[in-house]
Amino acid sequence: MLVVLAAITLTTMAQKDVIKLPQPNMTGGKPFYEVMNARQTQRQFSDKELTDQMLSDLLWCANGINRPDGKRTAPSARNCKEIDIYVFNKKGVYFYDPVANTLNLVFGTDARHKVSKQCEFAAKAPVILVFFANYGKMPGFDKEAREFYGATDCGYVSQNVYLYCAEKNLATVVMGAIDRESLSSIIPSRDGKVILAQPVGFPEK
Amino acid sequence: MLVVLAAITLTTMAQKDVIKLPQPNMTGGKPFYEVMNARQTQRQFSDKELTDQMLSDLLWCANGINRPDGKRTAPSARNCKEIDIYVFNKKGVYFYDPVANTLNLVFGTDARHKVSKQCEFAAKAPVILVFFANYGKMPGFDKEAREFYGATDCGYVSQNVYLYCAEKNLATVVMGAIDRESLSSIIPSRDGKVILAQPVGFPEK
Repeated sequence: MLVVLAAITLTTMAQKDVIKLPQPNMTGGKPFYEVMNARQTQRQFSDKELTDQMLSDLLWCANGINRPDGKRTAPSARNCKEIDIYVFNKKGVYFYDPVANTLNLVFGTDARHKVSKQCEFAAKAPVILVFFANYGKMPGFDKEAREFYGATDCGYVSQNVYLYCAEKNLATVVMGAIDRESLSSIIPSRDGKVILAQPVGFPEK
Repeated sequence: MLVVLAAITLTTMAQKDVIKLPQPNMTGGKPFYEVMNARQTQRQFSDKELTDQMLSDLLWCANGINRPDGKRTAPSARNCKEIDIYVFNKKGVYFYDPVANTLNLVFGTDARHKVSKQCEFAAKAPVILVFFANYGKMPGFDKEAREFYGATDCGYVSQNVYLYCAEKNLATVVMGAIDRESLSSIIPSRDGKVILAQPVGFPEK
């Protein structure tokens, strides 16, 4: 009886803490040069939620898997895939697992206001992506190389987010002035650095 | 007479040393999600030349102007636009001026073999782009911030190159193992850092 109850509890937890995303869209979209031409920063966000499909497409574009060998939409130094994405929304903070295509809960309350004191507008966006260079995935790199490639590799991922937003007429802005100290207490990985953060949402009319 | 001769000489020099690129293409192209899905690294290059139109489109995608206020296809920290692109080809080394849409000669001989001793395959590509973070354009940043944003901002530009290549079925690979010392003697700007280099060409069949 206890075993059954425990199993039910675990299943319930699993359903709540791991969100399966819909399959990302890998075809169609606006013509490429029009998307490049529409790439821009927009800081005024509506609080309207993104759909699950949009979230899945956004994350897949950012740093999802686009080949059978597990390679990504963004390159990384020696293919170490060290840029982890954390999704901050009103329900909490989730780790994006591009292999399982899931969001895995790591913090159970809204922490959007903790991302940046200097950029209060960001907390209004339905989603803030936080890019974390996971140095645990860079065993062959010295400190200088980790910091250098952690930074360059984050740029690739963030540009993919900009272009997804340009394709979908969404607002986004990358933020460097973020509260890395307070984010460190939320993000479970200890060995690495929060590089940049990027709110995404519908533009405020 | 001397004045006329001098004027003719200057005009000839200007024609040779400053190459006006055709207008970049800002419409059409493959559907966006198909381009994201095709994003990849390819290291085998044919020596076939890119057309001037391809070079113009490549550079515009990389870090060209996409708005009337001069803003770019790639974001930069505080909009300081510090990533300069140098184009290495068989004729020499050129600075890409996105405002004039020109290539300005800075070094008169083929220097592709000087970019990376570790990646000899790169010298076969018709074009190698070298990304230089021009710290002279970042007056308000301290040393740590220049190095950090110089690196992140280069990632944005390089991802645009990857995506252009995915759209055009071209080969490209970003290289971090480059000979920054030998590049410093070619690139005229003194205050800054060569971040990454990226050969672009047709794939070797």
